[in-house]
Amino acid sequence: MDPSKEEIQSWFYRLQQDICSALEHEDGKAKFSTDKWTREGGGGGTSKVILNGNIFEKGGVNVSAVFGDLPDQIQKALQLNKSNFFATGISIVIHPKHPRVPIIHMNTRYFEIPGETWWFGGGIDLTPIYVDKEDAVFFHNKLASTCNQFDATYYPKFKKWADDYFYIKHRKETRGIGGIFFDRLNGPHSKSEIFEFVKHVGQTFTESYLPIVKKSKDKAYTDLEKKWQLLRRGRYAEFNLVYDKGTKFGLETAGRTESILMSLPPEVNWEYNHQPAKGSEERKTLDLLIKELDWTNMKP
Amino acid sequence: MDPSKEEIQSWFYRLQQDICSALEHEDGKAKFSTDKWTREGGGGGTSKVILNGNIFEKGGVNVSAVFGDLPDQIQKALQLNKSNFFATGISIVIHPKHPRVPIIHMNTRYFEIPGETWWFGGGIDLTPIYVDKEDAVFFHNKLASTCNQFDATYYPKFKKWADDYFYIKHRKETRGIGGIFFDRLNGPHSKSEIFEFVKHVGQTFTESYLPIVKKSKDKAYTDLEKKWQLLRRGRYAEFNLVYDKGTKFGLETAGRTESILMSLPPEVNWEYNHQPAKGSEERKTLDLLIKELDWTNMKP
Repeated sequence: MDPSKEEIQSWFYRLQQDICSALEHEDGKAKFSTDKWTREGGGGGTSKVILNGNIFEKGGVNVSAVFGDLPDQIQKALQLNKSNFFATGISIVIHPKHPRVPIIHMNTRYFEIPGETWWFGGGIDLTPIYVDKEDAVFFHNKLASTCNQFDATYYPKFKKWADDYFYIKHRKETRGIGGIFFDRLNGPHSKSEIFEFVKHVGQTFTESYLPIVKKSKDKAYTDLEKKWQLLRRGRYAEFNLVYDKGTKFGLETAGRTESILMSLPPEVNWEYNHQPAKGSEERKTLDLLIKELDWTNMKP
Repeated sequence: MDPSKEEIQSWFYRLQQDICSALEHEDGKAKFSTDKWTREGGGGGTSKVILNGNIFEKGGVNVSAVFGDLPDQIQKALQLNKSNFFATGISIVIHPKHPRVPIIHMNTRYFEIPGETWWFGGGIDLTPIYVDKEDAVFFHNKLASTCNQFDATYYPKFKKWADDYFYIKHRKETRGIGGIFFDRLNGPHSKSEIFEFVKHVGQTFTESYLPIVKKSKDKAYTDLEKKWQLLRRGRYAEFNLVYDKGTKFGLETAGRTESILMSLPPEVNWEYNHQPAKGSEERKTLDLLIKELDWTNMKP
C-alpha cells in the first residue's frame, strides 16, 4: 500500500529524534533545544537546535509539514496548475567548531498536490573546510552503497545532480565535495519503494558523518585553519542565500525565518579578494572544489 | 546638449576619486588600494578598497562601465527587446569598525540600450546599528534638500521607494533608516537635468555621511554593542544576497565577483533566534526599522 502523507511526516519526525540523539551523544556536552512553530497559512514544524557544544557550534535539525496555497511565483516555477499543496521534510545543517570537521547538510522531503501529483526529493552533501581525500572517498562510498541497494542508476545520476546543484556559479566553485541530490522522484519505482529509499538516505546521515567527525574532532588546529574556516563559511552563506531552492521556497512561502536561516553559520568572515598561496593546503582544497570528481574510484 | 555615455562614465570616475580622498582623510590611517578589471563580455571597472582603517574596517568604492549582450533572463526582467546594453555606475558600501558609526551605501548608475532607451538610477541609504534619531533627521534632511533643488516630488517619492526597496521581507524589517532610491529615471526632465540631479546625489554622499561619522567615531563602546553590530551585519548580508538587484545583475552578467561582493561585511554573526530584551536599546532600534517614518518632520 502507498504510504500516506501522515506516515511520511511521522517518519521524518522519528528520524529527527534519532539524529538528534546521535549528535548529542557524539557531542557529549550540548543538548538540542526545541521550538515548535505554526505557519499562518497552514501547518508548522519543530526546530531542534544545538549550540556551543564540544563539537557542534551551531546545528539545526528541522522538521516541518506545511500546507495551503502556493504563491503564484512558485506555482509557475514548478509548472503546476493547482495551488493547493502539502510539503513535509527534514532539513539538517551542522556547523562544527573545529575547522577539520566538515559542515554537513541533509534534507529529505515529500511534496504533494492532493489528487494531482506527488514527489520525493532530498540529498546529503559534505562541505569540508579542508578536503581530506580519505573522508571524501568514505563519504561517497557510503552514499553509493545506500543508492545501489535500490537502483544502480541512482548514485551516478544523483551524484552529478549534487555537483550541479551545490555549485556557486559566481565563484566557479562547488560548495564542498558534493554528495547526492534528487528531486521530483515519483517513478518508475512505486511510491513505497521510493519512500524506502528516502528513509535509507535519512539513515545514512549518521553513518556517513559521525566517523568523519570522530576522526578529526580532537586534533589541534591553528589560527590560520580557523580563519580559513570563517572564510569558507562565507561561501556557504552565499550559496544558501543566493542559490538554495529550499531557502527560497521557505522564505517565499512564509515559513519560519529562524528555522530556515538556521543553516547560516554562526560566525563568518568576508575578506576582499582572498587568494590562498600557491601550494598551500587552502589552495589544494580550492583545486578540489570542482565538479565531476569520481570519488568512489579515487585512491584516498 | 545631452551628456554622452563617456561623459557620464568619466564623471563617475571623478566622483570615485573625490569620495576616496574624503574617506581617507577622515580615516587618517588606511588608504584605498586599486584593482582594475576587465569583463570578458565587454568593459570593466576600477575597484577601490579600504581595509582595517582607524574608522573604516572594510569599504569599497567601485566604478564600472560594462557593455555587451544582456543575459536573456535580465532582458526579460527589464522588458527589453534589444539585448545590446551599456551600463556604468558607482557603488559604495562602507562598513565602519565602530558599532555607533552606521554602514552607508550609495549607488548611482546609468543604463542604455543604444538607440532605444536610457535611464538613470541610484540611491543613498543609511544602516545604523543603533538608530540615533538626531542622525536620522540630519541624514534625511540632507537628502530632501538635494532632491528639492531639482523637483519637489522627488524626495517623497524616492524616500518611499527606498523604504520599499531596502526591506528585508522575511525579517519584516527595513535594512536601516532608508534614504532615497530611484530607478529608470528618464523624464519628464531632460537628460542633462537628470544627470545634474544624479551628480548632486553623488556629492551628497560625503556631506550626509561624514558629520555622522565624526559624531560617534571616538566614543567608547561595549562588547554588547559590538556583538549587536555583528548580528545586524548578518541582516545586511541577507539583504544583499537575497534581494539586492544590483548584486543579482552583477552576478548574472558575470561582473567581477570580488567587486560585487565587496558589499558584504568583514565579520558577521548569525545567532539562532536572537531576541533583544524588552526596553533595551537594541529593541528600540528594531522598533524603528519600519517603513514610512517621516524623519524630516521628526523631532530628534
